Amino acid sequence: MNEFALIDTISDVLGDAAIAPWISVGIGDDAAVMRPRAGFEQVASIDTLVADVHFPKHAPANLVGYRALMVSLSDLAAMAAVPRYALIALTLPDSSDVFGEHWLRQLAAGMAAAGRATNTALCGGNLSRGPLSISVSVHGEVETGQATLRSTAAAGERLYVTGALGSAAACLRRQQLLPAQEDALNDLQRAYYQPAARFDCRPEILAATSAIDISDGLVQDLSHVLKASGCGADLYARSIPLGVGAELTDALYGGDDYQILFTSGRAANAGLCIGELSSVTGIRLDGKEIQLNGYQHFAT
Amino acid sequence: MNEFALIDTISDVLGDAAIAPWISVGIGDDAAVMRPRAGFEQVASIDTLVADVHFPKHAPANLVGYRALMVSLSDLAAMAAVPRYALIALTLPDSSDVFGEHWLRQLAAGMAAAGRATNTALCGGNLSRGPLSISVSVHGEVETGQATLRSTAAAGERLYVTGALGSAAACLRRQQLLPAQEDALNDLQRAYYQPAARFDCRPEILAATSAIDISDGLVQDLSHVLKASGCGADLYARSIPLGVGAELTDALYGGDDYQILFTSGRAANAGLCIGELSSVTGIRLDGKEIQLNGYQHFAT
Repeated sequence: MNEFALIDTISDVLGDAAIAPWISVGIGDDAAVMRPRAGFEQVASIDTLVADVHFPKHAPANLVGYRALMVSLSDLAAMAAVPRYALIALTLPDSSDVFGEHWLRQLAAGMAAAGRATNTALCGGNLSRGPLSISVSVHGEVETGQATLRSTAAAGERLYVTGALGSAAACLRRQQLLPAQEDALNDLQRAYYQPAARFDCRPEILAATSAIDISDGLVQDLSHVLKASGCGADLYARSIPLGVGAELTDALYGGDDYQILFTSGRAANAGLCIGELSSVTGIRLDGKEIQLNGYQHFAT
Repeated sequence: MNEFALIDTISDVLGDAAIAPWISVGIGDDAAVMRPRAGFEQVASIDTLVADVHFPKHAPANLVGYRALMVSLSDLAAMAAVPRYALIALTLPDSSDVFGEHWLRQLAAGMAAAGRATNTALCGGNLSRGPLSISVSVHGEVETGQATLRSTAAAGERLYVTGALGSAAACLRRQQLLPAQEDALNDLQRAYYQPAARFDCRPEILAATSAIDISDGLVQDLSHVLKASGCGADLYARSIPLGVGAELTDALYGGDDYQILFTSGRAANAGLCIGELSSVTGIRLDGKEIQLNGYQHFAT
């Protein structure tokens, strides 16, 4: 099956997940065309997931596809954006039965499910030969001037997370990344493969003073907010919500749950308070300074 | 050097190529934010260039970067869009001296040059570990309802190309893809490494009845227009403009020049007429039926 036949196959599987009222031109031309909403800005992010770096190569393809779109969309949720569309650039190994048409159909079905769950149109993409990887560019909209940034937190504000942390990291730690059956995941596998980009928390994120999604671990991602905003933070171990099967270190350094960390000067309905921002730089856990050692793609 | 330090390095090299008046939030947050222009639609495309599939791994990095952005932008030019911004997802091999900081600076400098040449802000991206590849999502704007499609050509119209074809293919055929010096390219190497996305032809593309950029070869890309529009074409060999060093087969099947093929019912100032559209399906060269055998990424 050649490139163009494979694209037709993907297009068939996506079905209505490829279109939306705001898409003027979808799959099949040089580029997709979208109508922007008046009074809104465009929000855009790109991520790449490489096989055996960011997901197990032999994981069920529908889980890989679902997760790839959700973890990419999470960046839009952290900006308080409404998702609109995504472009998928897929690189597939040469002449492989494993990554042939059946695998591609499963991958597309997983992506379509994540697209439908978030109202994101999968309106374009690209297919190349090469080592297995998936790049996803995601696009949303936010009221002009209202995107929630990393750089606008201030000492005295409270720190919140949108949900329990650490279960996805526990899935890795316990080496459960290859589920026996793709439709019978345990809690840890669900946390890893089926994160939900937290668009349901948009009112809180829009009202927050700063936000970031937790992809590399609470401590690592918090440090980005602190660096950008020029302050420090005090965390309270007892307040950090642990997911099923998670230990505190999973929550602090694990990442992969794709909850959102945000700051606010007032109580947030959708958030769990885990600490507060300080004018003293650094991060302290119950008063004791802690170091950054979350996941770093390029650590030496 | 860790991921975040490398991103700072890239950001430094990009300098003013990362910003533009329409960018509200650039590099350094979860996502970039752009202000759309009233009366315009958003046009978006994504491409991946894999090392040793789409470019030689050991080619000078500034040439690789320049070309990666230009070939991606070419899709926007073919829709009659004005370029606005791009996101770059770079996957770099582990612990390699070759693809270390110096290489990355050169790559970013090449991309910045292409960005400046086209007024495209490089406002976001992602860095991952993995086999060397570059995914670029490109974004532009076109007057609402005015994007030029593949599907709107009609029998009786003339076929045009925006410039000479085949030199990039001749560069591959003659195995000249690794220039001795990156600042002393010959004509074939210039054609391959320094294509210009043809935004200078926007008036003609906007007025055209259909358009597509020639990435996979004239015959292959013409066949997409014909399939989408439901017609055939007659090409005249003498009219096909050959680039320096190119033979007719380079022009017909080679691709990689990134000229634009477009159709029009009237004479086009910026185009060279190479044939006409027919109600008889298929492609004929001087009256003789020719087959598709341009570059197919997935041909078996």
